[in-house]
Amino acid sequence: MSTADTSDGFIDQVSWNGDGLVPAIAQDFKTGRILMMAWMNRESLAITASEGYAVYWSRSRNKLWRKGESSGHLQQVREIRLDCDGDTVLLLVEQQGGIACHTGRASCFFRLLADGEWQESQPVIKSPQAIYESPEL
Amino acid sequence: MSTADTSDGFIDQVSWNGDGLVPAIAQDFKTGRILMMAWMNRESLAITASEGYAVYWSRSRNKLWRKGESSGHLQQVREIRLDCDGDTVLLLVEQQGGIACHTGRASCFFRLLADGEWQESQPVIKSPQAIYESPEL
Repeated sequence: MSTADTSDGFIDQVSWNGDGLVPAIAQDFKTGRILMMAWMNRESLAITASEGYAVYWSRSRNKLWRKGESSGHLQQVREIRLDCDGDTVLLLVEQQGGIACHTGRASCFFRLLADGEWQESQPVIKSPQAIYESPEL
Repeated sequence: MSTADTSDGFIDQVSWNGDGLVPAIAQDFKTGRILMMAWMNRESLAITASEGYAVYWSRSRNKLWRKGESSGHLQQVREIRLDCDGDTVLLLVEQQGGIACHTGRASCFFRLLADGEWQESQPVIKSPQAIYESPEL
């Protein structure tokens, strides 16, 4: 179990929403590419800050989500930033395996609006089947 | 008044939350810097797509927020992207005036976690007083 302290002052300064969450954007530290957006609660931010790897809160599974725990695609955190009104977190990360998305793409933002349609614009680097059957952990 | 069509198929494909909103991240098209995170409803996304300038939904004012309408700091949209599960939008923009934040900084994410505290890490380019009294429009 983690012993991360959720009573730290920097955590109190975040404007948690009514569900106790904030959006957290993950950006590749080296390339600047935006990788994904997920959610954090107090505990996930505390653990992320103390351990140095991105931990989110899964709203669908209602539990802590240690990014990469099943895929091996951990995100080593280089910077944690907060916006002006304190209700969004930005993580600058080194994305292990170069894949952030569960679809096997580098980034979750692989759909581009063109001619009135969302068009896929990034290749699948590794199939989800290969990712989740053969984790790199 | 805008005539943007909110019944377009690409808008239906967005996973709007219970309040009819999605988070929208604005990233500088040239530098890759993340500028801000705001919210969009169907109408703001439709207008953004049709007019080519970022329009958000202000949750505090409960109205459309044409970014830059009072500051002059418009965001010309170069790309609109959607993530894998369709619940977050990413805008690649050219930030007019080089200032996205109402504090007069380039980005809203000017606070960096260091030594357990949020520390300011970006200069104020132009004071808010100067921005909002002398808009560049």
